[in-house]
Amino acid sequence: MPESTKGPADPLRGPVLVVGAGLLGTSIGLALRTRDIDVQLVDANPEHVRTASGLGAGRAAEADVAPQLVVVAVPPDHLGAEVRRALSRWPQAVVTDVGSVKEAPLAELADGATGAPVRYVGSHPMAGSERSGPLAASAALFDGRPWAVTPHDDVDRAAVDVVLALVAACGAQPVILSPAEHDAAVARTSHLPHLMAVLVAGRLADASPAHLALSGQGVRDVTRVAGGDPVLWQQIITSNAAAVLGLLDEVRQRLDLLREAVATGERDALAGLLAEGVEGTRAIPGKHGGPVRPTAPVYVAVPDHPGELARLFADAGLAEVNIEDVRIDHDPGRAVGQVELVVDESRADRLAEHLAEQGWTVHR
Amino acid sequence: MPESTKGPADPLRGPVLVVGAGLLGTSIGLALRTRDIDVQLVDANPEHVRTASGLGAGRAAEADVAPQLVVVAVPPDHLGAEVRRALSRWPQAVVTDVGSVKEAPLAELADGATGAPVRYVGSHPMAGSERSGPLAASAALFDGRPWAVTPHDDVDRAAVDVVLALVAACGAQPVILSPAEHDAAVARTSHLPHLMAVLVAGRLADASPAHLALSGQGVRDVTRVAGGDPVLWQQIITSNAAAVLGLLDEVRQRLDLLREAVATGERDALAGLLAEGVEGTRAIPGKHGGPVRPTAPVYVAVPDHPGELARLFADAGLAEVNIEDVRIDHDPGRAVGQVELVVDESRADRLAEHLAEQGWTVHR
Repeated sequence: MPESTKGPADPLRGPVLVVGAGLLGTSIGLALRTRDIDVQLVDANPEHVRTASGLGAGRAAEADVAPQLVVVAVPPDHLGAEVRRALSRWPQAVVTDVGSVKEAPLAELADGATGAPVRYVGSHPMAGSERSGPLAASAALFDGRPWAVTPHDDVDRAAVDVVLALVAACGAQPVILSPAEHDAAVARTSHLPHLMAVLVAGRLADASPAHLALSGQGVRDVTRVAGGDPVLWQQIITSNAAAVLGLLDEVRQRLDLLREAVATGERDALAGLLAEGVEGTRAIPGKHGGPVRPTAPVYVAVPDHPGELARLFADAGLAEVNIEDVRIDHDPGRAVGQVELVVDESRADRLAEHLAEQGWTVHR
Repeated sequence: MPESTKGPADPLRGPVLVVGAGLLGTSIGLALRTRDIDVQLVDANPEHVRTASGLGAGRAAEADVAPQLVVVAVPPDHLGAEVRRALSRWPQAVVTDVGSVKEAPLAELADGATGAPVRYVGSHPMAGSERSGPLAASAALFDGRPWAVTPHDDVDRAAVDVVLALVAACGAQPVILSPAEHDAAVARTSHLPHLMAVLVAGRLADASPAHLALSGQGVRDVTRVAGGDPVLWQQIITSNAAAVLGLLDEVRQRLDLLREAVATGERDALAGLLAEGVEGTRAIPGKHGGPVRPTAPVYVAVPDHPGELARLFADAGLAEVNIEDVRIDHDPGRAVGQVELVVDESRADRLAEHLAEQGWTVHR
């Protein structure tokens, strides 16, 4: 990275041009508008621009816009072309994108003679929603989430500062990685899990209803992500093919070991693979990068009528135990549902006792 | 199944002898005691019996107990031997077990000349906890959960009625399957998902912290079950080896297709596999066997201090929208967390509007 002079106190002044007013582009617009940065919007679908600006995410782009920063937020297949267009059309602007894969678009942009454009810095917010489009957007979408920033070797340092300022303005936590490292990381933490969930879910597609009746929470959790948009995921996987293939080969090799261990009844080999899985679940950092704190569930039976959940949380609040997560399991045909309160392991007994004293039916 | 005379109105009278006072055995005892059925407990570890009876799950077994029903709730490796022992020691009793696999223990019991014992009926409640032991037990553990009952061909119909009465007394929903069908079903809905989660988690075990920093909710959900006890899972997988192997072979074949599609860039083949996954996620029935109703999330920013969750649920209650599930995402280092309320898709807009009117920062 060549040296460059330091920018002003806040490197992000605007105008910011957002190309693609979908979930991510509109959410970025909303976050920047809360800081009074001028945001202009463009989208192949003019309806998206009208919706996004109606929500307060910025205004339709003017013909003579001279953006300080262009944020390209279009589907993976169009990313390279739109970044290239932005770089040539606004020769003073820093250009970033929010795509899921970083090396392939960079390779498209790089020129044999001059290398990758110094004004381009890739990025990737780790946030999203099962919904898409501008109506699903929110200024809070990126709040506290990791947001990868992936400078290439020839980048202008001042351009990186502008993109880091964008990340900060959206309330996200920057994670700086090279494009190749980023792609290896998401292949492992996102693309491989997605594909394996797809393989498990695929085995359910033609199962008999009597067999599926035994489905518990485990299979629901393992397969949830496999419900994602196949068109989008096909683009993501294809543009990260090399990193994904390496992991698929590793998994295939472990799968063969696993098959062998099950077929021959080699219990030690099987136990070793299972223990590797336990170790892997412990390697995932806490939701916000901190260490994983051990948590424990407290189950409470809750009558299925309005106000009972509020009463439960009011009573739980009095125990002064922080609730880390909640799951509700209720059956429309039954009068009582079950609520799982997930709390710090060392506080679970206290919460359970407190709620029992308040008359709740509690179990650990 | 041979015909048999019908039993009295409630076929389960007791005494019930529970062999193994762990999570499942103790929970069964607690559920039966709420119906005043005499429950007697035995465990290789006398401390477990003391704990379970202290919790109200029954009393230590008497030397002259003459159980109507014996429930064997021991680890998979000891199941066959304990069932056989119960059948020979109490020649009038119906015997069931709550193990995760049904064919292998039955084969152990069957005698070439007389077939499987007519008084034995296998069963398997689809309930559990990440915790184990009697202290984790609850009378409500089985409430509304599927509970497989797996009669073999030679079974006495009256014995099946006794086990169905046990399922009903525990508040669970019976699912009647042959032992072979049961094992095929759990191989697909539980054992395969577990093993695939293990393979994904195994790829995280030695990943760099910078890469793991990009972990999102997806990989957490896919790998959660892989944190389960390797000793227990090694026993479960080994005793269902045949059914698991068949599915591992299917997955290996799909994995090769997937690898091929990614390597050659055959987008249609990849899209087809991804679509199969989407179809599979839709095949899973609703949590309680009903049809899956489409749900949608509503995200709310919630200040991180006691009472705010209670206030949120109180306000949500006034909107008269049923909350199907909740997720909390908060960072100890930040003043505001995010709560995801999952509601019926057709009611999400109403809830979001109502909460916004009450002053909450909401997004869809």
